[in-house]
Amino acid sequence: MMKTYRFLLAGLGNIGRNFLEIICNKEAVLRDRYGVKLIPVAVTDSSGALVNANGIDAAAVIAAKQNKRTLASLSGAVAGMNALDALAACEVDVVFDATPVDLKTGGIGLELTRKALQMGKHVVTANKGPLALAFQELAALSDLSDLGKPGLRFSGAVGGAMPTINVGRSDLAAAHIHRIEAVLNGTTQMILEMMANGTSYDEAIREAISAGIAETDPTLDVEGWDAANKLVIVANAVLRQPTTLADVSVTGINKLRADEVRAVRMLGERMSLLATAEWTGDSYKLTVAPTALPETHPFARLAGQAMAIRYETDIYGTQALTTYEEGPVGSSAAMLRDFLDILRNN
Amino acid sequence: MMKTYRFLLAGLGNIGRNFLEIICNKEAVLRDRYGVKLIPVAVTDSSGALVNANGIDAAAVIAAKQNKRTLASLSGAVAGMNALDALAACEVDVVFDATPVDLKTGGIGLELTRKALQMGKHVVTANKGPLALAFQELAALSDLSDLGKPGLRFSGAVGGAMPTINVGRSDLAAAHIHRIEAVLNGTTQMILEMMANGTSYDEAIREAISAGIAETDPTLDVEGWDAANKLVIVANAVLRQPTTLADVSVTGINKLRADEVRAVRMLGERMSLLATAEWTGDSYKLTVAPTALPETHPFARLAGQAMAIRYETDIYGTQALTTYEEGPVGSSAAMLRDFLDILRNN
Repeated sequence: MMKTYRFLLAGLGNIGRNFLEIICNKEAVLRDRYGVKLIPVAVTDSSGALVNANGIDAAAVIAAKQNKRTLASLSGAVAGMNALDALAACEVDVVFDATPVDLKTGGIGLELTRKALQMGKHVVTANKGPLALAFQELAALSDLSDLGKPGLRFSGAVGGAMPTINVGRSDLAAAHIHRIEAVLNGTTQMILEMMANGTSYDEAIREAISAGIAETDPTLDVEGWDAANKLVIVANAVLRQPTTLADVSVTGINKLRADEVRAVRMLGERMSLLATAEWTGDSYKLTVAPTALPETHPFARLAGQAMAIRYETDIYGTQALTTYEEGPVGSSAAMLRDFLDILRNN
Repeated sequence: MMKTYRFLLAGLGNIGRNFLEIICNKEAVLRDRYGVKLIPVAVTDSSGALVNANGIDAAAVIAAKQNKRTLASLSGAVAGMNALDALAACEVDVVFDATPVDLKTGGIGLELTRKALQMGKHVVTANKGPLALAFQELAALSDLSDLGKPGLRFSGAVGGAMPTINVGRSDLAAAHIHRIEAVLNGTTQMILEMMANGTSYDEAIREAISAGIAETDPTLDVEGWDAANKLVIVANAVLRQPTTLADVSVTGINKLRADEVRAVRMLGERMSLLATAEWTGDSYKLTVAPTALPETHPFARLAGQAMAIRYETDIYGTQALTTYEEGPVGSSAAMLRDFLDILRNN
């Protein structure tokens, strides 16, 4: 028995485009193992939208984006039509949000997620912004608060393919978590590694940008906001503590000098931008800060851009996760697992 | 809204007794967070059973087992009544199997799991035996094959609290797994560590037994069968390859000499009993064997009895899990998360 689901995909950057590719490449396993067929009926990028109730030609969209063309340049596309307009213009079962992170307002991703949930549509998002800004509001609209409401999943927003959220919420069910330690930002790992090897901070930034590891504006990474956002999502979703960015003490790596990072390395330690949550008896204290990890620390030898998280619990011992990913494919794949998880639970 | 579930718990060794304790200690969080109340209406050990439709006095059972008394010595208990008899004698919603591992016949655990599923009861088991011997048969009776059938979960059977199975089945949904590497037996880790430090094999075994790390008969651990059983379960449940023990190439640590293990250590490497699954193009090749891990291998520095698993995939990169647990509480807690997972999916 095969069930068909129509979806809107907002955002065709690396995560969105790879998601479309995965849906195409995994058509057989989705059909044979999960009894599911996914049909894109609307896709959007910053230039406009393509809507077709009979299904969009995903291959044509993928090819256009790989060739750096806008969606609006495709035949049938509507220039200037945004994701909210597209949502109103078609019938979908689920919305995938891969729009860019906007930490000021949440951007179109927040409006889209809110509206879709209000309309009773499932939402899967890889976008940290709406979650970091409005977690409690979105949870209240979704199955996170009431199993009868539409599904909301976001595992790709916190560490790509690393099952950070699922392990914390489901595999540690009913646990008390004493402490979390996490390396949630791969870009700063790479920059700090270069600095430990003698490169200056400014030069390391330049190299990271030119290698495509850092954004052209690496502020969110190096000032610690990206890691802090992920910690806010973990605090809300796993620790169940209503949290916003203002609740996190954030120190970036941008004040570190290369000789400090080298000195730590000379001691056999490893400087990392560590995110921590510590139970203080009545709440969790949340911190992001550069931290010298002793050689014996399980995160002291993480390779390259690897990320990791450790949950110290009462009944499950200490559970640690590590992810090694190249590029954004893991975040795209996380959107697929999230959708399948919603189906299992609905 | 609170839902009440009546359960049978078979087996009151460390895992079963700790499970009862967790149910008692977590009563408030089960009620407040999950809307669930769990009532034990039947418990069994090798001496007999205690059945009470109104609920058993769990504290009295826990105290008796802590004091090394048999269940049959408790007032109201029926000597010689086994888990199958108990299942027939009461109305339950779910059966928890914490009976001892029997790799020859599956023992009472296999009979109980089969019968309970046939009766439409959910089963949560921490017992590797029935799964290693009859995975495909039990899967066919449960929601592993058909979502309309009763739930079967067993995450505590493969690495205690480590979410080995859940991550493999759910968080890596639709992935192709190229390779698995895993350290699934903590006892051999401890014995090999002692041997690397100069202790002879025989002396290491004696020390491990007297420290309570190894069973009085450590054959299953040191000959590799415990790790192989867990790999069989992973192969069936995660790799979806119908597998029995006969399909695994198994070499234990019992033929190793201390000077070999020390020599590996001198090279900066670490001898571990490694379980691997390797995709060969049409199936997975399954192996358990002592393996010298280079210093840079992510498992080369696992502490104490820690266990770990790495999944190398096509779309989720490489995902690694590590667990640090003391005693069997993690396996007991895994039975609770499994039950909550069944509720979410049913």
